[in-house]
Amino acid sequence: MSKQTDRILKALDQFNIETPSWGYGDTGTRFGKFFQDAAAITIDDKLSDAGIVHRFTGCCPSVAVHVLWDFPPKCDINAVLRTARKHGVRIGAINPNVFQAQDYKFGSLGNPDPAVRRKALRHILDSVELMHATKSRFLSLWFADGSCYPGQSDIVQRKEWFAEGLRKSHDKLRGNDIMLVEYKPFEPAFYHTDIGDWGMAYILSRQSGKRARVLVDTGHHYQSQNIEQIVAWLLDENMLGGFHFNDRRYADDDLTLGCIDPYQVFRIFHEIQLAGWKGKNIRDIAYMVDQCHNLKGKVEETIQTAMNAQELWAKAALVDYDKLGRHQMRCELIDAENCLRAAFSTDVRPAIELWRRKRGLHPDPLKAFRASGYERKAAKDRAARRRAAGIVQGKSFAF
Amino acid sequence: MSKQTDRILKALDQFNIETPSWGYGDTGTRFGKFFQDAAAITIDDKLSDAGIVHRFTGCCPSVAVHVLWDFPPKCDINAVLRTARKHGVRIGAINPNVFQAQDYKFGSLGNPDPAVRRKALRHILDSVELMHATKSRFLSLWFADGSCYPGQSDIVQRKEWFAEGLRKSHDKLRGNDIMLVEYKPFEPAFYHTDIGDWGMAYILSRQSGKRARVLVDTGHHYQSQNIEQIVAWLLDENMLGGFHFNDRRYADDDLTLGCIDPYQVFRIFHEIQLAGWKGKNIRDIAYMVDQCHNLKGKVEETIQTAMNAQELWAKAALVDYDKLGRHQMRCELIDAENCLRAAFSTDVRPAIELWRRKRGLHPDPLKAFRASGYERKAAKDRAARRRAAGIVQGKSFAF
Amino acid sequence: MSKQTDRILKALDQFNIETPSWGYGDTGTRFGKFFQDAAAITIDDKLSDAGIVHRFTGCCPSVAVHVLWDFPPKCDINAVLRTARKHGVRIGAINPNVFQAQDYKFGSLGNPDPAVRRKALRHILDSVELMHATKSRFLSLWFADGSCYPGQSDIVQRKEWFAEGLRKSHDKLRGNDIMLVEYKPFEPAFYHTDIGDWGMAYILSRQSGKRARVLVDTGHHYQSQNIEQIVAWLLDENMLGGFHFNDRRYADDDLTLGCIDPYQVFRIFHEIQLAGWKGKNIRDIAYMVDQCHNLKGKVEETIQTAMNAQELWAKAALVDYDKLGRHQMRCELIDAENCLRAAFSTDVRPAIELWRRKRGLHPDPLKAFRASGYERKAAKDRAARRRAAGIVQGKSFAF
Amino acid sequence: MSKQTDRILKALDQFNIETPSWGYGDTGTRFGKFFQDAAAITIDDKLSDAGIVHRFTGCCPSVAVHVLWDFPPKCDINAVLRTARKHGVRIGAINPNVFQAQDYKFGSLGNPDPAVRRKALRHILDSVELMHATKSRFLSLWFADGSCYPGQSDIVQRKEWFAEGLRKSHDKLRGNDIMLVEYKPFEPAFYHTDIGDWGMAYILSRQSGKRARVLVDTGHHYQSQNIEQIVAWLLDENMLGGFHFNDRRYADDDLTLGCIDPYQVFRIFHEIQLAGWKGKNIRDIAYMVDQCHNLKGKVEETIQTAMNAQELWAKAALVDYDKLGRHQMRCELIDAENCLRAAFSTDVRPAIELWRRKRGLHPDPLKAFRASGYERKAAKDRAARRRAAGIVQGKSFAF
Repeated sequence: MSKQTDRILKALDQFNIETPSWGYGDTGTRFGKFFQDAAAITIDDKLSDAGIVHRFTGCCPSVAVHVLWDFPPKCDINAVLRTARKHGVRIGAINPNVFQAQDYKFGSLGNPDPAVRRKALRHILDSVELMHATKSRFLSLWFADGSCYPGQSDIVQRKEWFAEGLRKSHDKLRGNDIMLVEYKPFEPAFYHTDIGDWGMAYILSRQSGKRARVLVDTGHHYQSQNIEQIVAWLLDENMLGGFHFNDRRYADDDLTLGCIDPYQVFRIFHEIQLAGWKGKNIRDIAYMVDQCHNLKGKVEETIQTAMNAQELWAKAALVDYDKLGRHQMRCELIDAENCLRAAFSTDVRPAIELWRRKRGLHPDPLKAFRASGYERKAAKDRAARRRAAGIVQGKSFAF
Repeated sequence: MSKQTDRILKALDQFNIETPSWGYGDTGTRFGKFFQDAAAITIDDKLSDAGIVHRFTGCCPSVAVHVLWDFPPKCDINAVLRTARKHGVRIGAINPNVFQAQDYKFGSLGNPDPAVRRKALRHILDSVELMHATKSRFLSLWFADGSCYPGQSDIVQRKEWFAEGLRKSHDKLRGNDIMLVEYKPFEPAFYHTDIGDWGMAYILSRQSGKRARVLVDTGHHYQSQNIEQIVAWLLDENMLGGFHFNDRRYADDDLTLGCIDPYQVFRIFHEIQLAGWKGKNIRDIAYMVDQCHNLKGKVEETIQTAMNAQELWAKAALVDYDKLGRHQMRCELIDAENCLRAAFSTDVRPAIELWRRKRGLHPDPLKAFRASGYERKAAKDRAARRRAAGIVQGKSFAF
Repeated sequence: MSKQTDRILKALDQFNIETPSWGYGDTGTRFGKFFQDAAAITIDDKLSDAGIVHRFTGCCPSVAVHVLWDFPPKCDINAVLRTARKHGVRIGAINPNVFQAQDYKFGSLGNPDPAVRRKALRHILDSVELMHATKSRFLSLWFADGSCYPGQSDIVQRKEWFAEGLRKSHDKLRGNDIMLVEYKPFEPAFYHTDIGDWGMAYILSRQSGKRARVLVDTGHHYQSQNIEQIVAWLLDENMLGGFHFNDRRYADDDLTLGCIDPYQVFRIFHEIQLAGWKGKNIRDIAYMVDQCHNLKGKVEETIQTAMNAQELWAKAALVDYDKLGRHQMRCELIDAENCLRAAFSTDVRPAIELWRRKRGLHPDPLKAFRASGYERKAAKDRAARRRAAGIVQGKSFAF
Repeated sequence: MSKQTDRILKALDQFNIETPSWGYGDTGTRFGKFFQDAAAITIDDKLSDAGIVHRFTGCCPSVAVHVLWDFPPKCDINAVLRTARKHGVRIGAINPNVFQAQDYKFGSLGNPDPAVRRKALRHILDSVELMHATKSRFLSLWFADGSCYPGQSDIVQRKEWFAEGLRKSHDKLRGNDIMLVEYKPFEPAFYHTDIGDWGMAYILSRQSGKRARVLVDTGHHYQSQNIEQIVAWLLDENMLGGFHFNDRRYADDDLTLGCIDPYQVFRIFHEIQLAGWKGKNIRDIAYMVDQCHNLKGKVEETIQTAMNAQELWAKAALVDYDKLGRHQMRCELIDAENCLRAAFSTDVRPAIELWRRKRGLHPDPLKAFRASGYERKAAKDRAARRRAAGIVQGKSFAF
């Protein structure tokens, strides 16, 4: 086996990516959802779908869950855990939902109404309990909070409310729990967002306590912003918690990882593996998918996502760090640059197929999934259940 | 009365702005809608709301309608017209809807399936009939068509389908009908949008026929794009059909006109009034609002919008064109620039209040509306009707 | 005198803005400079120009200087100070230059070559001495450092070099000296910039010591970024050092303050005055101009800039904070927003003219400057001196 | 030989890319130039450098020239042609320069002063004569014209002046001459640019005459704009004249082709080859490089550029059009997308090396160039000539 293949195999052994339960249900844009018979209805469906993704890709062993959608009040947590085990997956990051209820119209932890702030905090604290009950390590916090009009909000006052709410959330953590603080420049708030960029997430995380880290959603940046630099800085500051991967061209488009700019994902992976090579602990980074599968088949797109991620992770594993460092120190720009380009130009697909074969997986997960008949069966079964329960998909556009 | 006040009064006499029926119902983002008891349920409610806006502002005499939402199959068009008359408004631009039905998942006029293309065309042709039945002059076409992934679509083939569909739509027009062709760079399509910018709308309009014009939605541009230049060019090419006004900071945020960058709206209005002063026919431009009122009270925000528009239109009316032209020809930059700044710095609110008083309107439409008790009454009435009909607001977020 | 006028007069009493020496000499874009006879040649010319700006505006008492351009080796610092005094101005922020020499091709404090890093540090330490010699309080650091190609540089290694260099620079400060750390996303580095955003400047400043603060150049942001929120956060963190004001539509266009988006400058000023009203110390903020006057007359544009700044500062002073806070707490969006809009819509020019008259200034500084004949005289004098010295303006485009 | 290799060889046979004479001399940003001893001084040097690039890459047979810099008044055109022949290259696109002279401070064809407009037109007409004298087919027009401040210019008046100037320029063309009209959204004009986007270039080209085409500079777009869609539309309208290739992350960064987003260049090449496959004439498209080599060795970077272009062109040649079209018609998104991804993932470097060997070229042009000692020799020679002529590189930053 070539040294190159060997590097790829080792790199893939160390790379898993978590899929989100909400990626298996019907989603869409504010202009509408396009429904699929095979879309998951229940948490059982979602875990089944996640299980099938892991069965065919071998790199998606955990599932991020949305507290509100997946764990309704009084649900049997142990039953959910058994279902997960049955499908060969485990519960990953716990995502509270403090944006959907009508109460959150003007914010959650940043709401001027103390009762709403308390309600939001309570839900987060409950989520920490769920985290402990499901043996998850990650509390994943995203806030829609912000304002749409200049003057609407007292930006500094809201910063303080956030600092307080996050500190209290953090206090409930224990052991090696991690609180992930996500940032996003806009949407659904269109004038200011309380945690609008990595600098804000960094400050609030630092002030919350030692278990807080920044979560990088690749779609939550300004046009042209250098995401890999942010990743490198956060790693150096020991403040990188994890990722929500997706690709975009315009705003938070939530497209398939790497479908628009694969070289950028490669560079992010490169910064991480380079940091690992230099001795940083990169084992605790949570790699997660956060996409909106409105047009493609949901399980198919998730498999495609995992395959894209593996391809780009494998390419990044081929960078020759000694050579790169030498050229960087000598300011040999073209040669340094070509260290990255050579790795990116290499066709790593055969080595990845070999990795799959060694694990007893089909070399082409997408083909194998299609051959399995899973989607057809799920579509038939779920459509029937919807009919039986009188569920009508639709009427969900935002206008 | 000062010459300045006189200019403002005359300018306001020539400025109306159309409000959209969909701005009175519940709308939101893909993360959710926040419901209001006073939100309109039926077309009657919407016309009533539009009527009240016009009654207090005096500059919103027409209402843009969405064919699908406002004119369901077999509705009594004459009854709608009577309702409109009763509320003191008339039907404005007719907006077909070829994006909402599940059939349109992969496009309407640009769909690879000829049956879907025919369905979309049929709906547009029906909309032209509705236009004639309602004595509206404007067919307002916005297409969500596009693709989300590189390779998904044959861009050129879709261009041809669009050229064909628009030509056939145009053929159904008559007299002084106008077909407005809107462009938008992204959302809900995130890789390519078939009519993505003003150049594309221009080409397709030119190729459709003499009754086609470009519609400028102020929120449908790239970051930093000079909208007033596009407006000036379209005017010069006799291809400016009208506007969808709203403001934004990031994407198509659909905020209140002028709330983020009032000077830009002022400059757009300046280019139009300047063209009028030079002799261009600017009387047929359709000024329309297209906003998403998720947080503010819907009627209140519409009134605020009309007031903002009047304020900025009045400021633009104060530019001294002779002086401006002289400084421009002599490349006296600071003096030319200050012609615009002086107009913008002027407080035009007293003159606008005078205009209102001369029309028998309250000088502060927002205050007068609030004093009228309309919203409280509408909220009570509509909430009761929702209860009676078993309508549950909600469950409409896109996830 | 109305209460409103009184607020404006008080606000103007507390607002000065520093002009940059380099704004009086010939500048341009990479496509060329357009020369002006009246452009300053020497530091004496620049101080004379700055003095005239202050004489007519009354709000520009200090001048930012560029160490390399204004204080060549062995220059007589005391003579410069005497000249400044003669022209009625004082020396403001000291700006080292570690980007112009050929040595800095691959960086200054971030250069892989330790000799270059030492050279850059030495220049900065020398600048601190100059700062003390000139009794300036502000060391203003901008670094062009970064890379143009993926792989060119070790981002994390350069971060460490910067942390070290800034710490050593900070160690040389004393008393109430302030070290301003500026950020910029791109240009002249086009792949990554070592201090690329406010988060990076914040981290490096925090790690340097208690005399380090972040400098906000309004042109150094991503498209659509909410600058006033950054300002508000930095103020709350006691980390806002000052501003480089200019306006832009696209990149770092370095246009006249407020010429493109005056409402944004107003909102920045509002956040500062609001913080002051809440009790924050805002007296030490350094307001500076950093523009590139390629087309307009340099002194004229600087006067226009100061006038724009005063107008927007005065408008911001009119916000009713009690009312605003009340509406914000009650989530009365339209009313809260209108607190800002009402202040912005007010014509503050008469009150500013009054402020000028009370100080013995002409109510229209631009008109008075033009009437003074200063520019004509400077042009004649400087053209003659250029001829005498054999200086040929030009040949300076970047191609 | 595999079918795949065969496709690549054929594709490379049909792909040449022109290098610019100005890419061999010293260039920089407004913050400074970093000088290289080996930078070309004269047109002879530039043709020599271009010749060496072609000798090693085999795909750069022509050189774009800047009239002002390369053909000073009274230069011996035939001598230049002989020099070009000697170095194995020919003269490509002729680029007039109507932005550098002080007269053009407020524009060229759009200048309010008729004398300046005439001067600019005269220079362009002279350039057409030069074009005929050098047997070039392409007149390549880029205008810096625009304004920096709202109100500075009469946008519509300038549009008319441009229409007139371009028509007169076009009238001077003959035979199969092509007039390329370039667009650029900003820089050096920062408020409006007279030919700001492809729509404006399209309209002006259409109105000029049948020999006018649009020139696409890949760096001249808004953030996130879909360039390949513009290319596809222009091709379909028979209005695509050619390209200025370079890459960027932020503004018009003028970096090496494909260094930031190689997948985007691939997609542009794909749209072109797809159009060719469908029967469009794509043979007359002018592929040109327009980059600013401030940090890398100029000849080295040009060779790297040509190699990048070949790699991405070869990848694009591997798309299976039949398969792609089938999946597109069936709306099989993942499969359609994967047609592009499979081509892009393929390592085409071995096939390109084979193509080189078959032409007697070294498989690694960069390595071969370095081994040739050309740069060292040029540096020594040119440094000596600079010394002899008393030329001092430097003093060229824009401040």
